[in-house]
Amino acid sequence: MCATYRALCSSGYADLTMQDIADESSKSKAALHYHYDSKHDLLCSFLDYLYERFVERTAAVEGEDAHERLLGLVEAVLSGHDDREEFETAILEIRAQAPYEGGFRDRLTRFEDHLVTELTAVIETGVEAGTFDEDVDPGDTAEFVVTVLTGASTQRVTVGRSVECSQRMLADYVETNLLARPEELSA
Amino acid sequence: MCATYRALCSSGYADLTMQDIADESSKSKAALHYHYDSKHDLLCSFLDYLYERFVERTAAVEGEDAHERLLGLVEAVLSGHDDREEFETAILEIRAQAPYEGGFRDRLTRFEDHLVTELTAVIETGVEAGTFDEDVDPGDTAEFVVTVLTGASTQRVTVGRSVECSQRMLADYVETNLLARPEELSA
Repeated sequence: MCATYRALCSSGYADLTMQDIADESSKSKAALHYHYDSKHDLLCSFLDYLYERFVERTAAVEGEDAHERLLGLVEAVLSGHDDREEFETAILEIRAQAPYEGGFRDRLTRFEDHLVTELTAVIETGVEAGTFDEDVDPGDTAEFVVTVLTGASTQRVTVGRSVECSQRMLADYVETNLLARPEELSA
Repeated sequence: MCATYRALCSSGYADLTMQDIADESSKSKAALHYHYDSKHDLLCSFLDYLYERFVERTAAVEGEDAHERLLGLVEAVLSGHDDREEFETAILEIRAQAPYEGGFRDRLTRFEDHLVTELTAVIETGVEAGTFDEDVDPGDTAEFVVTVLTGASTQRVTVGRSVECSQRMLADYVETNLLARPEELSA
């Protein structure tokens, strides 16, 4: 899986071969083919592996209240390693293949559903605790936040735009639209 | 250009050949090669053609005030034809190639810059006219809206999610965060 990660970073998705992955690992190409019928199969397993790590990463997000945990989830999705751009480029290539490859689409949907579910739960908790306004719709808001995160990631890859502005605007959005208003205004 | 559009809708980007485009047009593959050195060259011209049409479409957006024009721009970007999904898939494939293909990245950046510029101008006009709150930052807000639009388009392609929720949440965002507040609240 680590070899697949490195090979995707250096070759991208379209040009990736089983040989590239073997070159990054201690296994031969024949050994890889013993476990995986094709590049498609191997990448499906790789997406499953990423999904497990993604679930761990979102579960590890801490915070004093729902507001902090929400911003922590945003940070966990947007922040990354030094080679983040190369990797995100490969992931966007895989995303663009989703309409042709059901195995990719199912797995990408699982990522998105997990993030929507996590965000919905945090927002619900915040509404119940009075941190967030009672008029906030947790499900719609969670989907909106995921849309912003998806857009920020796509823009980083396609036009090289930094995610800073999106992250700041999203924090403003949470403050203005989600946080319960002081009593003098809501009265 | 129309033949390229049809060929992208039916073949996608990765599998597209000059022959596919010739098959959709009245020209031979040789005639296409006379005008364009490669598929890459032809697609760069195609992106230029799309850009001209995009500029026309955004210029044609009307509205009584900045609020209506802003929602009109959102509608113009998100709405489309019956074969929109196939075409958007091909465009996302091209986007994912941007880090490898400078010609693509330059053109995609031009699209994005144009949309940010148009949205910034509309928001500025709205702030000046008092339709939008004077505390709104036109540039940051325009970039945020473009991020949402990019995310909505990526999600439509990769996980088949409808853009309806994004469009509704964006309209709510504009109403809550941009529209000037009634005097009793801003006082």
